[in-house]
Amino acid sequence: MGSWMKELAELHAKHVLTPWSVQKRASGPMIVRGEGSFLYDSEGNRYLDLSAGLVAVNLGHGKEQVVQAIQQQAARLCYASPAFFHDQRALLAQGLSQSAPWPEGARTFFTTGGAEANEDAIKMARMITGRQKVLAFYRSFHGSTSGAGTLTGEFRRFAGEPGIPGVVHFWGPYLYRSPFFSENEAEESDRALRHLDLVLLHEDPTRVAAIVLEPVVGSNGVLVPPKGYLARVRELCNRHGILLVFDEVMTGFGRLGASFGAIRLGTTPDMITFAKGVTSAYVPLGGVLVREGLAATFDAKPLWCGHTYSGHPLAVAAGMGALIAYRDEGLFDRARLIEEWLWRGLRNLEKESPLIGEVRGLGAFFGLELVRDRETREPLSLWHKPLSPEILWLQQQLLGRGVYAFFKHNVMLIAPPLTITEEELQDGLEQLGETLRRLWEEPSFHLGRI
Amino acid sequence: MGSWMKELAELHAKHVLTPWSVQKRASGPMIVRGEGSFLYDSEGNRYLDLSAGLVAVNLGHGKEQVVQAIQQQAARLCYASPAFFHDQRALLAQGLSQSAPWPEGARTFFTTGGAEANEDAIKMARMITGRQKVLAFYRSFHGSTSGAGTLTGEFRRFAGEPGIPGVVHFWGPYLYRSPFFSENEAEESDRALRHLDLVLLHEDPTRVAAIVLEPVVGSNGVLVPPKGYLARVRELCNRHGILLVFDEVMTGFGRLGASFGAIRLGTTPDMITFAKGVTSAYVPLGGVLVREGLAATFDAKPLWCGHTYSGHPLAVAAGMGALIAYRDEGLFDRARLIEEWLWRGLRNLEKESPLIGEVRGLGAFFGLELVRDRETREPLSLWHKPLSPEILWLQQQLLGRGVYAFFKHNVMLIAPPLTITEEELQDGLEQLGETLRRLWEEPSFHLGRI
Ligand SMILES: Cc1ncc(COP(=O)(O)O)c(C=O)c1O
Ligand SMILES: Cc1ncc(COP(=O)(O)O)c(C=O)c1O
Repeated sequence: MGSWMKELAELHAKHVLTPWSVQKRASGPMIVRGEGSFLYDSEGNRYLDLSAGLVAVNLGHGKEQVVQAIQQQAARLCYASPAFFHDQRALLAQGLSQSAPWPEGARTFFTTGGAEANEDAIKMARMITGRQKVLAFYRSFHGSTSGAGTLTGEFRRFAGEPGIPGVVHFWGPYLYRSPFFSENEAEESDRALRHLDLVLLHEDPTRVAAIVLEPVVGSNGVLVPPKGYLARVRELCNRHGILLVFDEVMTGFGRLGASFGAIRLGTTPDMITFAKGVTSAYVPLGGVLVREGLAATFDAKPLWCGHTYSGHPLAVAAGMGALIAYRDEGLFDRARLIEEWLWRGLRNLEKESPLIGEVRGLGAFFGLELVRDRETREPLSLWHKPLSPEILWLQQQLLGRGVYAFFKHNVMLIAPPLTITEEELQDGLEQLGETLRRLWEEPSFHLGRI
Repeated sequence: MGSWMKELAELHAKHVLTPWSVQKRASGPMIVRGEGSFLYDSEGNRYLDLSAGLVAVNLGHGKEQVVQAIQQQAARLCYASPAFFHDQRALLAQGLSQSAPWPEGARTFFTTGGAEANEDAIKMARMITGRQKVLAFYRSFHGSTSGAGTLTGEFRRFAGEPGIPGVVHFWGPYLYRSPFFSENEAEESDRALRHLDLVLLHEDPTRVAAIVLEPVVGSNGVLVPPKGYLARVRELCNRHGILLVFDEVMTGFGRLGASFGAIRLGTTPDMITFAKGVTSAYVPLGGVLVREGLAATFDAKPLWCGHTYSGHPLAVAAGMGALIAYRDEGLFDRARLIEEWLWRGLRNLEKESPLIGEVRGLGAFFGLELVRDRETREPLSLWHKPLSPEILWLQQQLLGRGVYAFFKHNVMLIAPPLTITEEELQDGLEQLGETLRRLWEEPSFHLGRI
């Protein structure tokens, strides 16, 4: 490494606190450039961005329309108080309303990220319904601020505990490790609904403001709901006057093969929270889409939500640039094509590698659930524990082979930019196959000593 | 208004939810450009940005170094997973450490805004001390997410209640409306400390992880602490092993005439939360500065904080551009000059207008506390209520005269860009004087019917 870059790496280790990490272990390539599906480090090494950052860079890196939108807006106006109107903000909010699943239209409250969006969705649901309780999945991630962290159903919430009152967790469907001891998808769906019904009864449905869920659970395993499940959750919500909030921070903006997961999955919530893909992560932005009928609540009642950067001019301009790119290039649909490639490629890997317990996914959003043993399904890394040495090994080996992927627990998230070519994807999967093969062939792996 | 702009304004009203507002009333000029101390709307009208947005745009609008840093970084790399290292992030974190008040140095955990920074500071303080309780001022604003909102000591927290457990509010010094019935500054300081001591005793100081406070209380009235107060809070913290956290989201980056308020006020906290000025609000960014001795806690223990956009490449590049601009132009000190101009100008206004109850401030951060009557000190707008018709009238009249200012309760915040010229400032204060004179001369004002 050049000595200047070496110095920078030392400065980084010395002065930057890295998220979710033991700081001593924080290190890695210094990424200085991105283009299309690839990241480049200071040494010129190239990495296929197989998880689009943290399932965020849906347009790939360096997308011209967005870069230009940012550069032009930066020259005009970066920021003004959100009390002022702003041209790009109006256009983006209109575009989002058009991309959303409601014929009645929608309004957007802008935030800077996903956690804030979920915080505001809870507040709005409480203001609208006058009710207090909120239900969310175990095995979910909704962000790390106190409210979003309390919604979260995995270990990243513990440091914020006891969190906010009124949040109740319930179990969602997950056939591969069924919390309901089901044998097939229909049974899993049915039992998951009976479970939810029971939880509602015991919590009193008239006290529940909202059910917040990821339509496809993202970082906690890419869990695609069984057919009919979401529609029946919607029915339960209707029956009890409960608002249904979809956290589409990962699933929005083409990830599942439509503008929003709600559309691909055919179930319409009352609010959608989003972030990441809205700007392809180029500028921090998030928000809550609220269907018009509910948003109108705030015509006469004050909306008690606010952030300095709400509707940030540079961020909404990037969002508008991204929306134009998604539309011009038909990228909201393209994940359906990527889905075919992924099914084919991953089914092949599954045949070859005994480490793959299950392949799951929809659109350009797949999870490889890795196990020590296909029979026992023992996970390759335990939930609620730091990543196992084997997962760290896989991550490092993949990086060495020029592939970046995001692992959570024992699941590898495959969520490439929606612009990826078939060849790029095939190359990535080949490296992945080779890496899994090497792990399996390592004698130390079978001795439990990797 | 051009018909295209009129259409945009209608789209905005139709599709954007505006913060902290009854939506029916949300409207205003469409700001499309910024330059130096001025904002320009779609009609070409010019507004002096007398509050730097929401006390954020410390460098003024369109600052070349920052715009270029954004444009160049946008072309190179907008985003990569925060698990990777990044050159600009390393440099900015180093620069922040150098600008901070600790000889031992500091590390930064980056967030996207002020609320998240306070959320993470609480989490870190709890992780470091193993204690649970956190003390904060009544009359404070720390953000609107559940944790930061619970810290907040004014009405913007109510919609998030009951919030997180373990937060206790106490009263800070505020001589003009003394919660301790004091007659002078020394008495106010002394009583405020005896009050804090008493609260600590009744909460058990060994259970208190942190005291979080704005070194100069910002949106809740620009309350400058009396001499000696902060130093003695520091002593109390030392005595009880409590961490002192300064929320410098408003006071940081030159606002008080030094890089951080801690330096201007001569009291050193254990952590500093920041946002706004770090990029002059050009790109959403915030963070927590943690002094090295404490940050090292996370070398071996995992840091349970994280956000998708933590250390966002585009945002940190803007931050680095801003830091260079602050330094090159000596802007961290310049507020001391602006302070002189402001004292002089505002003292004159105070003489002329019976509506001004008190002028307070430090650096380029002043508050005009407006009253109906100087004797009774009856506020011109009640706390914990929507802005009064008189304040709305003032705001509108000022806008009509080409001056934007941020009002909170009965206090007008005067916090111009640190680049403002004496002439620009004088013009703004003249408009302000004229507006206050008009209000006083309005017969309907004295009939309570404005
Ligand atoms: C589904 C979901 N919701 C919310 C969040 C939180 O978003 P942010 O990190 O922008 O706060 C994430 C982040 O990964 C997410 O995957
Ligand atoms: C002192 C202080 N802390 C925190 C915040 C919250 O910052 P943000 O709006 O970026 O969440 C603000 C916002 O005005 C503030 O003034």
